[in-house]
Amino acid sequence: MKKKRKSSGIIIIGNEILSGKTLDTNSNFMCNELFKKGISCDEINITRDEELRIIEKIDLFKSKYDYVFTSGGIGPTHDDITSKSVAKAFGQKLVLNKEAKELLQKHYLDDDLTKARMKMAYLPENAIIIDNPISIAPGFKVENVFVFPGVPKILEIMFKEVINSLSGGKKYFKKTVTTILSEGVIGDDIEKIQRKHDIVEIGSYPYFKRNSFGVSLVISGDNKKKVLDVTSEVYNYIKLKNGNPKIF
Amino acid sequence: MKKKRKSSGIIIIGNEILSGKTLDTNSNFMCNELFKKGISCDEINITRDEELRIIEKIDLFKSKYDYVFTSGGIGPTHDDITSKSVAKAFGQKLVLNKEAKELLQKHYLDDDLTKARMKMAYLPENAIIIDNPISIAPGFKVENVFVFPGVPKILEIMFKEVINSLSGGKKYFKKTVTTILSEGVIGDDIEKIQRKHDIVEIGSYPYFKRNSFGVSLVISGDNKKKVLDVTSEVYNYIKLKNGNPKIF
Repeated sequence: MKKKRKSSGIIIIGNEILSGKTLDTNSNFMCNELFKKGISCDEINITRDEELRIIEKIDLFKSKYDYVFTSGGIGPTHDDITSKSVAKAFGQKLVLNKEAKELLQKHYLDDDLTKARMKMAYLPENAIIIDNPISIAPGFKVENVFVFPGVPKILEIMFKEVINSLSGGKKYFKKTVTTILSEGVIGDDIEKIQRKHDIVEIGSYPYFKRNSFGVSLVISGDNKKKVLDVTSEVYNYIKLKNGNPKIF
Repeated sequence: MKKKRKSSGIIIIGNEILSGKTLDTNSNFMCNELFKKGISCDEINITRDEELRIIEKIDLFKSKYDYVFTSGGIGPTHDDITSKSVAKAFGQKLVLNKEAKELLQKHYLDDDLTKARMKMAYLPENAIIIDNPISIAPGFKVENVFVFPGVPKILEIMFKEVINSLSGGKKYFKKTVTTILSEGVIGDDIEKIQRKHDIVEIGSYPYFKRNSFGVSLVISGDNKKKVLDVTSEVYNYIKLKNGNPKIF
């Protein structure tokens, strides 16, 4: 018997798209990845940052499709209401997620972990975290609904990880080393490490942290041992350069 | 009495977008034009070329929003089923539109006016034609639903014409304050300012630009004085925090 293709729907959350300020490219990225994976994307909805609208869409999509993917509205500001809305759509409480809290505490210095940022650790009570290797604040999954941030670079790396984990994908390993050094300082040496180990992929993602730039180095591949070995090598290199490395 | 902004919804029809093959730019174009006209775009739905899905969306949107705009599915091929679906959504027959037929007859030589092309002259019985200055085959309007082709260049010129003919939108004002501070640092205070002034909307948009990180705070609303007042308040707050504010 022929296996039926899995179905999916995408919900993009953000007034900046509806006002025309921002061109949404996240749904196109996700549609491409879903297509490659053999999952059908059946519908995309772009909705305002309004709780009732978001709840209504999630409620509809989660029963209509095998998978639902959302983008946007999980940052630290007052208009980031996706987590709260997903919780309500599932009749769950929004609670401080211990794992997310620990990630944020490790990533930010005490003074930088503002109330606004800590908001990003409040998730639906049954949420399972989706790692964010770039800016650390995680996405999450509740049942068949996967919640991603709206920044394309971050969504893309997180989405690839999730797509790989959906039934049929190959196992994929990933570690992140963060540093306060800039790409200009470490770029050449990291490139040398990459050349020595072409079985893994080292991605370099600058981000803003503690009023200065930082870089997340993401080491990934399907050979777990190699990923861990190269992660150690990168960590030791950054440490030698006094770059305050942290592993996630 | 305060005049309410008109609302609208956009329906994009096309499997090529859901498979990731084509990046939809039509909705972004329309959102920008609507914003300039002072008409709110409240929702975008991207749907498959399936009659029941299209009928369902049109039926929903036409009663929910003042205006509905659709893109795609009015060409000469078998999967162009938008006209038929719009007719059904309004309980109208699909008939040969005399005006559309004459336009096509004038445009194509007899031999070129194939049965497939003549299909483009079959419209809902109460349809009013929207001129297509590029490839002639017209769009149309039934009540508050405006139907456009999917080719961006053609849609754009037709849409501008339609937008100009719509009774005003209300005037809408918008200022931007940029800062080098991050959302995590200013989020709590900006939220307080937003709460004090719910007559305007404050959007917060982080960006990366030439090695610098920043946030654009977009203050918008239909009360010009209030927009300017809140812009000053945001500007002064950012200045106090040494956040290097700039107004646009």
